[in-house]
This record gives sequence, C-alpha cells and structure tokens, in this order.
Amino acid sequence: MERVSLYSIYEKEFAYTAGTAVLPACCSVSRCGETEEGSYMVSAFQKKEGVYAVRIMPEQMGEYRYRIWLKGSEESEEIKLEGAFVCVEPREGRHGKVQTKEDGFVYTDGTRFLPFGTTCYAWTHQPEELQEQTVNTLRKSCFNKLRMLLFPKFMPYNEDDPAVYPFGQGEEGEWDVNRIVPAYWDNLDLRLRQLEELGIEADLILFHPYDKWGFAEMTQEASLLYVSYCVARLAAYHNVWWSLANEYEMLMKKNVENWDDYGCLLQKEDPYHHLISIHQILQLYPKKGWMTHCSVQSGNIDFIPAWKKEYQLPVLIDECGYEGDLEYGWGNLSAFDMVDRFWWTVTRGGYCTHGETFHREDAVLWWGKGGVMHGESEPRIRFLKELLYELPGCGTAAVHGVYTNPNGKKGEEMTEADRHFNRLIESTPVENLTGLMAEVHKVISTDSWQLRYYGRTCPCFTWLELPENGRYRIEVIDVWEMTRMTVLHGAVGRTRISLPAHPGMAVLAMKERFW
Amino acid sequence: MERVSLYSIYEKEFAYTAGTAVLPACCSVSRCGETEEGSYMVSAFQKKEGVYAVRIMPEQMGEYRYRIWLKGSEESEEIKLEGAFVCVEPREGRHGKVQTKEDGFVYTDGTRFLPFGTTCYAWTHQPEELQEQTVNTLRKSCFNKLRMLLFPKFMPYNEDDPAVYPFGQGEEGEWDVNRIVPAYWDNLDLRLRQLEELGIEADLILFHPYDKWGFAEMTQEASLLYVSYCVARLAAYHNVWWSLANEYEMLMKKNVENWDDYGCLLQKEDPYHHLISIHQILQLYPKKGWMTHCSVQSGNIDFIPAWKKEYQLPVLIDECGYEGDLEYGWGNLSAFDMVDRFWWTVTRGGYCTHGETFHREDAVLWWGKGGVMHGESEPRIRFLKELLYELPGCGTAAVHGVYTNPNGKKGEEMTEADRHFNRLIESTPVENLTGLMAEVHKVISTDSWQLRYYGRTCPCFTWLELPENGRYRIEVIDVWEMTRMTVLHGAVGRTRISLPAHPGMAVLAMKERFW
Repeated sequence: MERVSLYSIYEKEFAYTAGTAVLPACCSVSRCGETEEGSYMVSAFQKKEGVYAVRIMPEQMGEYRYRIWLKGSEESEEIKLEGAFVCVEPREGRHGKVQTKEDGFVYTDGTRFLPFGTTCYAWTHQPEELQEQTVNTLRKSCFNKLRMLLFPKFMPYNEDDPAVYPFGQGEEGEWDVNRIVPAYWDNLDLRLRQLEELGIEADLILFHPYDKWGFAEMTQEASLLYVSYCVARLAAYHNVWWSLANEYEMLMKKNVENWDDYGCLLQKEDPYHHLISIHQILQLYPKKGWMTHCSVQSGNIDFIPAWKKEYQLPVLIDECGYEGDLEYGWGNLSAFDMVDRFWWTVTRGGYCTHGETFHREDAVLWWGKGGVMHGESEPRIRFLKELLYELPGCGTAAVHGVYTNPNGKKGEEMTEADRHFNRLIESTPVENLTGLMAEVHKVISTDSWQLRYYGRTCPCFTWLELPENGRYRIEVIDVWEMTRMTVLHGAVGRTRISLPAHPGMAVLAMKERFW
Repeated sequence: MERVSLYSIYEKEFAYTAGTAVLPACCSVSRCGETEEGSYMVSAFQKKEGVYAVRIMPEQMGEYRYRIWLKGSEESEEIKLEGAFVCVEPREGRHGKVQTKEDGFVYTDGTRFLPFGTTCYAWTHQPEELQEQTVNTLRKSCFNKLRMLLFPKFMPYNEDDPAVYPFGQGEEGEWDVNRIVPAYWDNLDLRLRQLEELGIEADLILFHPYDKWGFAEMTQEASLLYVSYCVARLAAYHNVWWSLANEYEMLMKKNVENWDDYGCLLQKEDPYHHLISIHQILQLYPKKGWMTHCSVQSGNIDFIPAWKKEYQLPVLIDECGYEGDLEYGWGNLSAFDMVDRFWWTVTRGGYCTHGETFHREDAVLWWGKGGVMHGESEPRIRFLKELLYELPGCGTAAVHGVYTNPNGKKGEEMTEADRHFNRLIESTPVENLTGLMAEVHKVISTDSWQLRYYGRTCPCFTWLELPENGRYRIEVIDVWEMTRMTVLHGAVGRTRISLPAHPGMAVLAMKERFW
C-alpha cells in the first residue's frame, strides 16, 4: 500500500472529461480506526484537459481509504475510483498545519508557531530564474510566513504582464475559471512545495485590487468557483493560509457580503480548516465566524490590545510599512523603524510582517517580485525571533501590559490621584490613548519571565516590578546591535535597572531555577 | 506728563487699607482722542499691606487719563485718584500682545508671531541664583514662549517646598487669597519683566494637579478671586498668556463648569483679551467662547488638522514628550525625535513646545526647575524657527495638505480607483487614518512656497507638484545636520527631487522672482 508521511499530500489523478475546473464529484476520505469517524469530503480539480485529481492531507497516522464518485450519486454506478494508502511518520521538522490557540498559534502536533512573515506579493508571476532566486533568499532568511498573491499585480514597480495567467478567457474576453491554465497552477504547486520544504507558511491572498487584467472584477459566481478550485487544489498543503484579500475595501466591485461568501465557502469546503483572514486598508472587516485571526494593515500598533479585545482573535500586523527608500510613504521605513515595529508589535501582543522596498531601476523589489534582499532589518528580526522562541509559553500564554500612570504608586501605596488617573484611562477610547504622554507599557510576560521594550524612548534607567515569589536574572538587550547582557542575578520585587539612554533597548527578566 | 512707551506698563500705586487682594474699586482708563472711545476698566490689586496699585498697558500712542474710585460710586466723593500719562513710541522690538489671526498668531502691530515654546514649570519657585541662570539660558536660546506654573509643583524631581507661597493661610490652614505674599508676587513681576526683555511670551498656567499644598483644592470662590488677582496684577504685561490648567482633568476637585467659570471671568475682566487656553491630559476641553487656541498634550500630531477643523482655532502642541532620558515615557525622547516632532507639527499646521528632562541626581531638570539645558534639540529648533520666519505668509496664510492616494493619479488623470480611495479616506475617522500606510502629507504652503517634511521616512526621491504659473528654486534640507542645499532652479509642474534616503529630510520650493 502506498505510504504517505503525516501532513504530506496524497494525490490521486484520474482521467475524466468535463468542462469545469472543479469536478462535480466528491472524494470521501476515511481513516480506518476503531470507528470510521473523521471521514470527510474533498473535491476533485482539473489539472489539465482530461485529467482531474484529488488531494488528501492525512492528519493522523494509519490506513486511509477513499472513494471518488459523481456528486449526489454515491449509490449509483458512477463511482470512478476507490483506493487506500497508509499514513506514516512525518518527515523531519513537519508539525502539521498552523492553527490558533488563545492569542497565538500552534501546529497540529502542538508545537508553537510564532509568525515572522515577509512579503513577496507577485513572486510567482516572475521569470523562473527570479523565482528560484527568491526561494534561495528565503532559505537563508529567518522568515516562516510569506504573504503572496495568486493573481498578478499591477501597480508602480509591478507593471509587467505575467507569462501565464491562472485561467483562459471566454469569447468576450472575460476570465473563464473553468479554463484552467496548467502552467500557472503547476508552477504554484512547485512554489508551495518549495515553501513547505523551507518551513514557510504560504499566506495566499485570493483577491487584491492592484489589477489591470480584470481578476478583481470577475463576477461573484466566477470568483466563488475560483475559491472552490483553490480549496480543491491547495488545501492539502499543510502550509497554506487563506487571506481573502489584500485591502478588501479597494476592490470596488465587491461588497461586504461578497467577502463573507468567500469566507463561508472556505469554512465549508476546506476540510482542514486552514487559517482564514482578510486584510484591510482602513477599516477592519467585521468579525465573522470564519475568521481565525486579524490580518491588519496599520501603523497604529498600539491598537493591538483593542483589536484583540474586540475580535477575541490573534492579531497579525501584516503591513505596517516596508523597509526601503521608495517615494511612497508606505515603502520607506528605515531599517531601525522596521525592527522597532517588530519589537513594538510583539510586546503589544501581536505578530509582525516584514517587507522590503528599495528603489531599483530594474523594478525588482523584494516586496513585489522577490529576488534578493538589500536591507538591514532581517538579521535583527531573526534575533528577536530566536529570543522569543527561547521564552517558554511565549505566543500561547502571554499576558500583556496596559496603560498606567507613570508617576503613580502601585498596590496599597496608590493614592486617590492614581485611582483617578486609572479611571480616566479606562473611560477613554484607545485612539485617544495612543497619543498619551504617559508610559505605554510594551511588555509581554508569563509567570516565569517578562520582556519589556522601550521603543524609541531613551530612559537611562527603568523600574521593573518583579514577583516576590521568585528570583530573576535580568538581561539588557540592544535590538539593533543584537546584544544581550546579563546585568543582574537574583532580582526580586521593585528593581532598578540602568539603561544606555538610546532608542531600541529591551529588558528581559527570567526566573532563575535554583532559588 | 509721565511718558510710557507703547505696550509697556503704567503703574499707579496708592495707599489704601482693605482686607482684600483685589480692591472693590475700579480704574477707568480712557485715551484722549477725537472721541473718547476705547475707555475700559481695570481693577486695583494689593501689592502689600496698605498699598494697592493699578496697572495699565497703553495699546495706542497719545494721552491717557484714568480715574480710580470705589466700585459703584463713581459719582460719589470716594474717588481716590485721577491722573494722566502720555504713551510714546514702543521700545525697540516691542510689537504688543500676541493674538490669533486665522490659524496662526500676530502681535498687536501685525507682526507675525510663530510660537516656539519651551517649558520650565516651576522655575519661579526655585532659589534666586537658579532663576537667574534660567533667564541667562533663555536669553541664549531660540524660544519665544515659556510654559510656567503660578503655583509650586510637587511630583518626581520636584519635591522641595518653595521659599514663599503666593498667599498666606487662614486659621484652619486653608489658603487665603486675600493674604497676598508680596515676596512671591514681586518676584513673579521681576521674572515677567525679564521674559518681556527677552521677547518671550509667558504662558501662565493658573492651576495644575501636581500639588501637595492644597492650591489645586481651593474652593471655587477662592480660585475665582485668585484668577481676578492675576488679571488685575498681570494682564498689563503684553507678554502674558492665560493657560487655565495643566492637565485639567487631573484636578479632581474641579468640574467642567468650574473651568468654564475661569475662562468667562478672564474674558470679562482682562481688558486686553490676552490669549486663553486649557491644557488636557486625555480629552480636549470642549470649545468655549473664551478659548483662543488649543493647547494640546498629545503624541498624535497627525490629529492637528482634525482639531483645527473641530475648534476652528490655532493648535499648539504644548506637550508631546520632552527630550531626555527619564524613566517615564513622557520624558525620554531622543533629541532627534524632539526635533522631528517640531517639524512634524509645523508641517501639519500647528506649533510645538519644547521641554527637557535629563535625569540628574540634584533633580534640577530644565522642564521643572530651569537652570541650563543639556540637550541637542534647541539649535535644530532654532534652525526651523529661522527658516519659517523667512517664509512670507507662514503662520498666517498657510494651507495644509491632506491624505491622498500615494499611487493615485492627479487631476484629469485620476482613475475611478483614485476617486474610490479618496471617498474611503473622507469617510474614515481621523483616528483610523493615523495608522494608514499611505502618504501622510506633512506640508505647508502658500502661493509662493511649499515646505514638505518627510519625517522618519527615508525616500531616495520625491515628486513635487508645483504650480505651472511660476518657477521654483528647490532646497533639500537636513533637519538634524541643519543644512540647506539648493538643488534646482526654475522647477515647474511635476518635479522629481533626489533625496538622501534617511530620516529627517525636508524640501522647500520657493517661487523665484525673476521668471
């Protein structure tokens, strides 16, 4: 019996002739256990003229059986195929698909996933050599998530027509989703496999507005069919995430209900329930049942706690400006500011995504086309990522600080004025708090550690409030120089720590084991 | 006849015994012109036991007459004094009091005033030597406005009792405004005269919450009497501004109506109608008729256009953090960030105030006690101030940019998507726009120039949209290095300007005369 490693793809091709991208047929999958629980349906998708396939991602070890039949006719003679395979141990380093857990993420096997994403919107629409270069760059980078478009992109620095489109066109020039272009989808498969090899989650953006070809203006019927095709073909990759849109409000031909329809369709048709989000330009899309996390475009990183409270979902700042030197305000952060936004985001309880936009006459910008990176933020982002992965419970059990009176006393020493200030804070909308000249705590912590980031501020010392029931080792961290210096052992209670009074400092307090 | 220069103070002392700080008497002032228009009333104030005075600031040249009588008894025998003086040309550099004009400020004689303030809250409560040092530091600085408290200040780095208080205490320890302490007020007079000599506007903060002595908790009756005394004694200084509060919401014993009462009293009693504002910690005080400008505490400088629209008043960012290295988030901006906030503020259409808070074991911090400055922002603030004063019409006739689609086409080339984006922007609350990853224009301009600031962004080039009916000289400005380089003459229309791709750059386009 064919062997498939856990979380890998079992694919069954079969000859069939029909005029549709998604076959009006189903594949029933069941795992042979003590009971037959866990059976589910997947659709077949056209690979090329006369050839369809189904893909199955086994999520438990053991024997699987499947049957493929025309939809609605399970009892009829039209069953095409039956088969079985055995799911064996996963390949090294595979942990399954990423799912949410509280305000963070874990793989199927429970391993933590801390998203450290980057952005190469149209990389799969570039010449093959450039795509390979992108893969090689990603291999050497720290990034474990990639925002990418399925449709080609048209905007400044992205003005080329791609070599192939996902579909052919009908008689009136409209895109016909049923005319699958194999070269496009085979290449996409290749790139998803490569990302999978690199341990990178593919955050697939299904629709976006930067379009001159008409993909953003397909009918709702065609758009839904396209989403169904994506599910049938791509959901079996454990490393796929669904992002309904880049800047959903900018797609003028779609309304709020259209987006909800895509989300509901994904929720219904994707048997693996991959992560689903929708990215905005101004107003976050209202919370829906299909939404697994907030994918936010904003420079207002201090809003993260408010969004987490409102949506009760993890928050990814998937766009907060890109490191670079473009003429556009969204694409000319200094490397320091890109790094600052990562630290700021994680210490406000979210996760951040990188992008790079250095002006080039050949218009090959990492953010648009991939290639190589030219910036200075990536090693610093790696430094942060490695630090966070060291922290037990980080990403799945962190608690987050709030605004407090910087001059105020704590606990029993609180004065009436302190309580008055705290009441003011509680009754003030978050958008007014972001301008507050008080201390905005950028801190995440658990019982065993706290990580505090000082952002662009330049304190020459700071006070830590450490629990009385432990003793702590204190590190002073320079986020730009990537240095970590232990300055104190055995700290307890209110502790003063000297700092070098320049931007980009952090302090880590870690509970010591042997006290 | 006694000669008084224009905008200076004519003071008439007279012996009188009464138990009140403000005499229930009035001084009627009239200027002898073709008509007797322009007569007004001022109150007498106690200078010391048995001595009262009235102060008059002549605002036009010519002969003035005054009569002092007990209130309500002009026709009686109780007139104490009559007199006259002649108002002559102003001393060099005197332009009168500052008033608002559109969204900026002018002196009485029409000369522009561009506020570049600093902050020495409790400087007049320090030992004399330190006060003199503060004056000497101010003399060498670029600052033309000073935020200062009338009551002493109690908070971290400000824990000393002052040598004198403004009033004595009653039998139960309450402050008795009628028991004026001459040493306090004589010193305040001295300091206001010194500021006047230096061309510095004294932004006098009447109430504040950082108090352990009880001034913040005086009865409303006592508080109103204190305000009346301030008007009677201090309004004749042309360089006085009234700030009702520092952080009004933090004064727990005052309610919204109390503040309105102070504002109304000032508006009624101050014959010169000096500027009046009220400074907040979180929520701007609602607009009132007595309010001449917004005195804002916020790091959300991008809100300036929204506040200007709502209040239809000039906006001063009177607190946006201080250059320094304190443990508190409000007092540890880098020098670059302090300078950045000045540029950001002025190119969003407001004015900014400096403060400095470097930690010192002797607790003599410029922001609290004065003394000397240790930072690096002041020369850069001077550089900006001198630049703005070069720009004709700046501060009185500037128009300000708005959010636009950075990728969008202009004018007739606008696409449907550009218009769609602009509609989205218009329908979005400003607090959501501040996080927008699009171009936030930081630009002020008139017909003859435009000044654009790039903030922390790092473009390697920029496009200017210059009018077609002129030719422009283009300067590239480094706000930190304080350099100005002319890079182009004769520019017109859409013009590309190379920039060095680091934070802190500005571009000035100045219409050339001879085209």
